[in-house]
Amino acid sequence: MTSEAESLFHNDCPKVSRVLSRLGDKWSVLIVVLLRERAFRFNEIKRAVSGISQQMLTRTLRNLERDGLVSRTTYPTSPPQVEYALTDLGRSLSEPVLALGDWARANLAAIDAAQARYDRTAQK
Amino acid sequence: MTSEAESLFHNDCPKVSRVLSRLGDKWSVLIVVLLRERAFRFNEIKRAVSGISQQMLTRTLRNLERDGLVSRTTYPTSPPQVEYALTDLGRSLSEPVLALGDWARANLAAIDAAQARYDRTAQK
Repeated sequence: MTSEAESLFHNDCPKVSRVLSRLGDKWSVLIVVLLRERAFRFNEIKRAVSGISQQMLTRTLRNLERDGLVSRTTYPTSPPQVEYALTDLGRSLSEPVLALGDWARANLAAIDAAQARYDRTAQK
Repeated sequence: MTSEAESLFHNDCPKVSRVLSRLGDKWSVLIVVLLRERAFRFNEIKRAVSGISQQMLTRTLRNLERDGLVSRTTYPTSPPQVEYALTDLGRSLSEPVLALGDWARANLAAIDAAQARYDRTAQK
């Protein structure tokens, strides 16, 4: 095994697996990319990330906060405003995450075509 | 919104979400990184990726093959040998995936520390 695979599979596994499994989840990815732009309030995030439920957004934000990727700031207005923003750690994560998103966007058509080919073959 | 977020959230969503959700799953990530090195047989992958069940490995490889990321080659030996390898598309995906894995490895300690801090605060 090359040293990169060696390290990923033996030295740090299953910790890296656990981190990847969290970071790779669809909602975390979308929220981390969204917050690259600026701080957002809960309802702004909910509007921007179409299809996410209130409960799932709450859970995802809590996990991102617990991982140190997102900060949660409460402003003493009435009613209190809560803003979510990337931490420095979260911002550094957003770079490889964005690269993965760019890849996905650039290769959607190729993946769709591959799936159509596969499904045609499988039905024979 | 910046153009990158705009595009990710409005133009291609939910297709990009669907792709990310597949690509981001832990087992796909580990297998794509493993296959960067060379072609592997099923049982070799099973040994290398600790903790994956036979059924989950079968399903993950089938999905990767369907997406056009992994090729499956059967050799007419007795018993037949089946080898899995990255396609060109899969190899191009492995670059951003590896970058994400590198980030996870480099920042494990920071995430662990953040979680410990969060859990101490939450228990108060």
